[in-house]
Amino acid sequence: MKQENIPYKIYLEESEMPKSWYNMRADMKNKPAPLMNPGTHQPMTFEELRGVFCDDLVRQELDNDTAFIEIPETIRNFYKMYRPSPLVRAYCLEEKLQTPAKIYYKFEGNNTSGSHKLNSAIAQAYYAKKQGLKGVTTETGAGQWGTALAMACAYLDLDCKVYMVKVSYEQKPFRREVMRTYGASVVPSPSETTEVGRRILAQHPGTTGSLGCAISEAVEVATTNEGYRYVLGSVLSQVLLHQSVIGLETKIAMDKYGIVPDMIIGCAGGGSNLGGLIAPFMGEKLRGEKDYRIIAVEPASCPSFTRGKFAYDFCDTGMICPLAKMYTLGSGFIPSPNHAGGLRFHGMSTVLSQLYHDGYMEATSVEQTSVFDAAEMFARAEGILPAPESSHAIRVAIDEALKCKETGEEKTILFGLTGTGYFDMVAYEKYHNGEMTDQIPTDADLQVGFDGIPKFPGNEF
Amino acid sequence: MKQENIPYKIYLEESEMPKSWYNMRADMKNKPAPLMNPGTHQPMTFEELRGVFCDDLVRQELDNDTAFIEIPETIRNFYKMYRPSPLVRAYCLEEKLQTPAKIYYKFEGNNTSGSHKLNSAIAQAYYAKKQGLKGVTTETGAGQWGTALAMACAYLDLDCKVYMVKVSYEQKPFRREVMRTYGASVVPSPSETTEVGRRILAQHPGTTGSLGCAISEAVEVATTNEGYRYVLGSVLSQVLLHQSVIGLETKIAMDKYGIVPDMIIGCAGGGSNLGGLIAPFMGEKLRGEKDYRIIAVEPASCPSFTRGKFAYDFCDTGMICPLAKMYTLGSGFIPSPNHAGGLRFHGMSTVLSQLYHDGYMEATSVEQTSVFDAAEMFARAEGILPAPESSHAIRVAIDEALKCKETGEEKTILFGLTGTGYFDMVAYEKYHNGEMTDQIPTDADLQVGFDGIPKFPGNEF
Repeated sequence: MKQENIPYKIYLEESEMPKSWYNMRADMKNKPAPLMNPGTHQPMTFEELRGVFCDDLVRQELDNDTAFIEIPETIRNFYKMYRPSPLVRAYCLEEKLQTPAKIYYKFEGNNTSGSHKLNSAIAQAYYAKKQGLKGVTTETGAGQWGTALAMACAYLDLDCKVYMVKVSYEQKPFRREVMRTYGASVVPSPSETTEVGRRILAQHPGTTGSLGCAISEAVEVATTNEGYRYVLGSVLSQVLLHQSVIGLETKIAMDKYGIVPDMIIGCAGGGSNLGGLIAPFMGEKLRGEKDYRIIAVEPASCPSFTRGKFAYDFCDTGMICPLAKMYTLGSGFIPSPNHAGGLRFHGMSTVLSQLYHDGYMEATSVEQTSVFDAAEMFARAEGILPAPESSHAIRVAIDEALKCKETGEEKTILFGLTGTGYFDMVAYEKYHNGEMTDQIPTDADLQVGFDGIPKFPGNEF
Repeated sequence: MKQENIPYKIYLEESEMPKSWYNMRADMKNKPAPLMNPGTHQPMTFEELRGVFCDDLVRQELDNDTAFIEIPETIRNFYKMYRPSPLVRAYCLEEKLQTPAKIYYKFEGNNTSGSHKLNSAIAQAYYAKKQGLKGVTTETGAGQWGTALAMACAYLDLDCKVYMVKVSYEQKPFRREVMRTYGASVVPSPSETTEVGRRILAQHPGTTGSLGCAISEAVEVATTNEGYRYVLGSVLSQVLLHQSVIGLETKIAMDKYGIVPDMIIGCAGGGSNLGGLIAPFMGEKLRGEKDYRIIAVEPASCPSFTRGKFAYDFCDTGMICPLAKMYTLGSGFIPSPNHAGGLRFHGMSTVLSQLYHDGYMEATSVEQTSVFDAAEMFARAEGILPAPESSHAIRVAIDEALKCKETGEEKTILFGLTGTGYFDMVAYEKYHNGEMTDQIPTDADLQVGFDGIPKFPGNEF
C-alpha cells in the first residue's frame, strides 16, 4: 500500500460546501445553440417554455451569462442530508493494478436514489414548490431518476407522478416500490390515464412501452392539469447547472490537498453527470487558466459523440419536444439492448456538444463486456458495487492507469462514480453466466437514425 | 429547522478512528457464562473450538479480561474504505415529529454489503488469512452476512463458500449475484456437496432448506476440508468485539461535540449491532462512571429477551453447535414469517443476555406493521431507505421522541441504523399493498420451543 498524506476519503466540512452552482455557459465563447421551435425554427422563448417547465427553471435554461447562481437554502439543507459526497483515493485499485498513477473518484451513489440524479431532482422540485405548484410529472426508464424525484417531492410535500416504461415497471418492481415508499404515484406507460396513452394502446394493444411514449404522457399530464409542470433528469442545461455541485465539491477537496488532475473521465448519456463533474475544471480551461484532458465515455452500442452528427434534432422519440443542436444518432435510432439504461439516449447535452465540437473535450466508446470486467475488478478492490453506467468511466480510468504502468508516468486520474448497481443485478448475472453481448451498430444501423433527423436550411450535417 | 452548531453528519478524520476494539466483558462483574460442550457439560476449551474456528478468533471468544484489543493495520485500512460511518443528526425527522428531542443515528449502511456485518467479516477473514488458511465457509439466510464475507474475502484473496438457504437462493437472486461478483461460491442448501445435505435431501426431497441445515453444511465443509474454518456473523462474543468499532466511533464523535445521549436504542437479533453500538457507553455504566438508558428492540414475532428463558441452549436448530447461556425461545422455535430476517434468531448473545439479566439494559418488542410505518416516515424525512431490521430501532426512537413532545423534555436519543433496505422491497411492497401481518406467538407456541431446551442439572429455568 502506497503511503501518502491523502486520506482514503476526503469529506468537506459543511462550511466548505458550495453555496452557488456554476454555469459553464457563461465562460463559453461559442454558446450552445438555443432550443428551437420545431414548427417555426425560431429559438424557444420564455413564454413558450413556461407552459411545460417552472418559470425559474426556464430562466436557468435560457441563461448563458450568469456564471454563479446561488443555491437556495432549502436545497443546501437537503444537500446536507447526503452531501458532501466523498472524493475517494482508490488506493486499493491502484495497488491491484500496480500502477504509478494516482486515481481519485467522486462517489455519488451514497443516497437512496443511488445516483447523482438527486442533485437536480431537489432543485427542480424546489422551484416547482416555490412557484406554488401542486406537483410535477416525469418519465423514468430504469427508475433512477424517478426515485430521485420521488425523494425530493416527499421532502417538499409535492405531488409526484411518474410514468414508468411498462416493461421496466413489470421487470423492476423493486425500483417501483422505492418510489411508492416516497409517496410517488407510479403508472406503467402507455396507460389509460392520458389521451396519447389511450391512442397508443388502441394502436398497439400488447406494447411494453418506450421512453418516448412515457415522455409524451408525462408532458400531456403536466400541460393539461392545473398546477403541474414537467421535469427532466438530464440533457437540459439547467440540469448540468445543478449537477455542477459535483465538480465544485471535487475541486474544493482537491485544492485543499493540492491535488491537480491530469485527466477527468466521466460516462455520458445525456451528459448530466459529466457536465457536472467537469464544470469548474472546464471553466478554468475555457478561461485559459489551466488545461486538463477531459474524456467522455459512451457505450459502443449508443455512440452519440463518437459516431453521431452535430445537428438540430428532437430530444424525444415522440418528436413533441423542442429541437436541440447536439451530437445525435437521430431520435429514431434504437440502440441494441445494453444494461447501462442511463446511457442509451440518442442525443447529448447541447452544452457538452458545443464543447466537444470546439475541441475542449475528447470522447471514446467502450464495449459492454469490458465494462463489466472493469466493474467487477473495481468492486473487489474498492468494495463498491458500481452501476453499469458508472462502470464505463471505470473502464477508461483503468485503461489510462495501465498506460501509466507501461510508461511509468505518475498521472493523476479523476473519474466520476455516478452510482451503485444494486438494482442492476440482472446485468451482473448475465455477465457472470457469460451471456453478455456487445452489439455495435453497423453504419447502416446508424443511417436509419440519421435519416430521421429533420432537414431544413441551416441544419446541414 | 432548528439551528444548532451540530452538523447534519459528523465524520471523524482518519486519525481519529479507533485503533483498538473494546471488549465489554473485561468490565463485567458477572462474566457471560462460557460456551458448553453439549456432551460433557464442561466449558468448551481452546482445543475443542480451534477445529471449527480460527485460532485467534477462539482466543478472542474466550477472552473475558482484555479490555482493548488492537485492530490490525490491514483491517484498519479496509475500514478506511467505508468507515468512519456518519453519525447523523436527524434534523428533518425531528422537524417532522415537532419534537424537542435531539435524535442521532449511526448509519452503518453506506457500504455494498448494506449493513454493519462487514465490520466483523473483514476481521474474521483477516485472522483466517493470517493463519494461512485457504478459505472460510458460512451460511446465509437473506444474504447480508454472506455478502459482507464475500467482500472481505475478495479483498484478502481468500476462498469463500456460502451455503444459502435454498428458498432465499431462489427468491433473492440479486443478493446471490452480489456475492458472485465478489467471487464467492454460493450453494443452495441443502445441497449434494455435503453428507448432511445429501441425507436431508434423501429424507425431504422437496425441502427449501433452513438456516439450521445451512449451518450444518457449512460446518461440515469447514471441518472436513484441509485449510478451511467456519465463520459466523452474529451471536458470538468475538463478533460483538469487532462491532465495538460502531460504538467507539460514535462515542468519539459525540465527545467531540459535547453530546451526551440519554438513551441508546438498537435492534437485536443475535446482538451484534446492539452490542457494538453500546459497547463504550456500557463500559462507562459498568464502571459506574455514567448512566444511560439502553434499549434492545426485537420483533414481537421473535421475542427472545422479552418472553424467552435465560438458560443454556443450542445456538443452531441442527443442535450440533455448543450450548450457550442466553435468553432463548428454544432452538426448535419457529418464528412466524417476518421480513426482518436478521432478527429471527431464537437466541441472543451471551454477553447481552448477562447484561440484561443483571439489569444493565431494557428490552421491548414491536409489531411489524408499526415498524414499517416508522420506516416509511423515516425514509421520507431523512432520505435513507432503512432495512426492516434497523426500522425496529427507528420505531422506538420515534416513540421516545413523541413522548418528549408530550412532556417537553429535550432528551438526546441515539439509535443504530444498521443498514439499507434495497434488497427488501418485497417487504415494502407487501406493506404498501396492505398485506403485512403481525403474527405474535401465543404462550402455547412459545412452549413448543421451551420444551426443546436441554434439561440437565444447573440448567433450570
